[in-house]
Amino acid sequence: MLNVKSVDEVMKIIDSSFGDFSVGTEFVNIREAVGRVTAEDIFADEDIPGFDRSTVDGYAVIAADTFGASDSLPAQLELVGEVFMGEKPLFGLKKGQAAVIPTGGELPSNSDAVVMLEYTDNYEDGFIYINKAVAPGSGVIFRGDDVRAGSVVIKANHRLRPQDIGLLAAMGKQCIRVRRKLKVGIVSTGDEIVDITEKPTGAKVRDVNSYFMYSALLSHGAEPIFYGVVRDSYEKIRQVVEKMLNECDIGLISGGSSVGARDETCKVIDSFGAPGILVHGIAVKPGKPTIIGKVKNKALVGLPGHPGSVFFIFNIFVLRLMEVMSGVEKSQVRCVKVKMAVNYPSNEGREEFLPVKLEKSSEGILAWPVFSKSGLISLLSSADGYVRICRNSEGLTAGEETEVILF
Amino acid sequence: MLNVKSVDEVMKIIDSSFGDFSVGTEFVNIREAVGRVTAEDIFADEDIPGFDRSTVDGYAVIAADTFGASDSLPAQLELVGEVFMGEKPLFGLKKGQAAVIPTGGELPSNSDAVVMLEYTDNYEDGFIYINKAVAPGSGVIFRGDDVRAGSVVIKANHRLRPQDIGLLAAMGKQCIRVRRKLKVGIVSTGDEIVDITEKPTGAKVRDVNSYFMYSALLSHGAEPIFYGVVRDSYEKIRQVVEKMLNECDIGLISGGSSVGARDETCKVIDSFGAPGILVHGIAVKPGKPTIIGKVKNKALVGLPGHPGSVFFIFNIFVLRLMEVMSGVEKSQVRCVKVKMAVNYPSNEGREEFLPVKLEKSSEGILAWPVFSKSGLISLLSSADGYVRICRNSEGLTAGEETEVILF
Repeated sequence: MLNVKSVDEVMKIIDSSFGDFSVGTEFVNIREAVGRVTAEDIFADEDIPGFDRSTVDGYAVIAADTFGASDSLPAQLELVGEVFMGEKPLFGLKKGQAAVIPTGGELPSNSDAVVMLEYTDNYEDGFIYINKAVAPGSGVIFRGDDVRAGSVVIKANHRLRPQDIGLLAAMGKQCIRVRRKLKVGIVSTGDEIVDITEKPTGAKVRDVNSYFMYSALLSHGAEPIFYGVVRDSYEKIRQVVEKMLNECDIGLISGGSSVGARDETCKVIDSFGAPGILVHGIAVKPGKPTIIGKVKNKALVGLPGHPGSVFFIFNIFVLRLMEVMSGVEKSQVRCVKVKMAVNYPSNEGREEFLPVKLEKSSEGILAWPVFSKSGLISLLSSADGYVRICRNSEGLTAGEETEVILF
Repeated sequence: MLNVKSVDEVMKIIDSSFGDFSVGTEFVNIREAVGRVTAEDIFADEDIPGFDRSTVDGYAVIAADTFGASDSLPAQLELVGEVFMGEKPLFGLKKGQAAVIPTGGELPSNSDAVVMLEYTDNYEDGFIYINKAVAPGSGVIFRGDDVRAGSVVIKANHRLRPQDIGLLAAMGKQCIRVRRKLKVGIVSTGDEIVDITEKPTGAKVRDVNSYFMYSALLSHGAEPIFYGVVRDSYEKIRQVVEKMLNECDIGLISGGSSVGARDETCKVIDSFGAPGILVHGIAVKPGKPTIIGKVKNKALVGLPGHPGSVFFIFNIFVLRLMEVMSGVEKSQVRCVKVKMAVNYPSNEGREEFLPVKLEKSSEGILAWPVFSKSGLISLLSSADGYVRICRNSEGLTAGEETEVILF
């Protein structure tokens, strides 16, 4: 019998059972590091910028020399030099002096502000006339303003975005330590399943789930490994699961997880000893007959055979499992708030995932349920996202504001 | 002089100038196709499913035989066989007959519905007792219900998601024609810039922009090519741009695009003849001194030197250019609606991109502007997204609902 658990209960079981998994680390060049997860806090070795830098084209000054300056009464400062890009100025300023400086140039010693070109007049008489008072620090980024030497610049367990790679470049970090990619094995079970390289005969169907999961794993930064299609036999499934346990961090077994004559996945998972099966059945639609098990410190997930169910179980539970096991900080779910286009009644007692198509209308964006019989594959390809209808809801009403999680 | 254009004007120029670019195609295995863009409509060669299939565990019946059946008056049907997974049933049903069938099994000929196990009683007397009437089609997906042979299943110019790969697998498509990845060259200009493999001396700074753009291009499915750092000299820049024009579809040149003594990028782009410069200056903050040019059918973009500016110009304009040139359907922008945590005054007359950090509070999620002096690199790494403040707005007020575009 299924001892069905709620979505929240399953999430808690995943968190508590796999939170201590440690995936190992490796060094990568930052050119290949986007999307990878940092394995340690990354410290700055030096101040950024490494010198007081002008943020505008203009004149480096001592701010106090400009106090009271205005169009009608400009401050007259002696021009004593020019700062060149990338070169350290070999002179400093004394009271009453100024120097030409470009954006990005280093301030001469003793200067503490830069006046923008447009607030100055230059009559080529050896002086520069400042028409506006500036405060100390105006037009300047001081040494260490951006990053302070010794500070943590990027924390551990962070999935690196392009802007983080830019920051690493600024610090001169060429290689960094990241978490190894999770190795995730994929096998499809079922006497009726054939790989897409074969032509299905009789009442056989092609293996859809392996290809969907392989691509989804690639998209989420894991390393997927194909284990092909096996028949619904205890021995055959056990053989391939044992191989997966040796070679992978997670094993995904699709098909054969309904409570019925062919429910071998469950027996196989339990055959490897404790802790064994953690979850057998989740109160969701679609995807109820899902199994989550643990063998030593590794995870095995039995997914239903329907591609539609696999899609949701993968996106809701397998991705969470992968986050927990790779130790990465929780990702933001990408949602949009839109209005339901029509009524949608829902079964009470279990959470439902409803695929929807978004359409622009005069009332804003509307969500249309992609109605469909169970198991249609084309459905998901035509949907833009899905709505989570919570287990005690009686459904959604037309015009109701709803959160759609985008694919 | 800058003839500054608005964001909308620039978008229109990109659309009209590069819409006819054609990027070429190649065949890939669907295992490697996720994230790629289809080059042609993909047709189904066969019906999916290829046979009438049960969606439940139960009994295949002729629906008319169950009419009027109820708990108190079950329909008594003769059990004539069992359907096995993946095997074509070698028998058909006659009036008054039923057969055992598993989820996914093929319906025997002449049957048109499946009654779920729970609505039946089996007393092992050679008959099955049906307690509920079913309509024709109940518990069944008919041949071609999911995909009809000859129909377009995935359109051209579609960026393939994992669920699309699943659909391709269902159709037995092992290889498909996709658009070649856009080749995008990256060069940084500036006498003060050194590559991260060098230790900056004097007032030099490391090349941040190339590494950010390289990673961002990888994330967006392009093929980035490094051209290193070149000095601010017309000849040197022209040399590398010529090389990029030979080898790439798009050339990105960062630094050196402010109107000043060192504005060589503009001259270089114009030196290759018409059409040349299309945009010189955009009414945005940050990123005003941006150049967009066209040489033959290829694109050259001159980006400002500030990493903060490059970030926005890349995300707003370069990504749009890449979408247009690769012919892909427009991507959805991922937004969240949140409240501003504080007031933020904005300059009138140009659109502003304001990086924000999101924080949960009792009033929901709040957006905090990441205040910063121009040019700070650490800023972007700490922000979760940004707000577009339109050019005629006077800014944002605390509590105002605002759309944040997520990084």
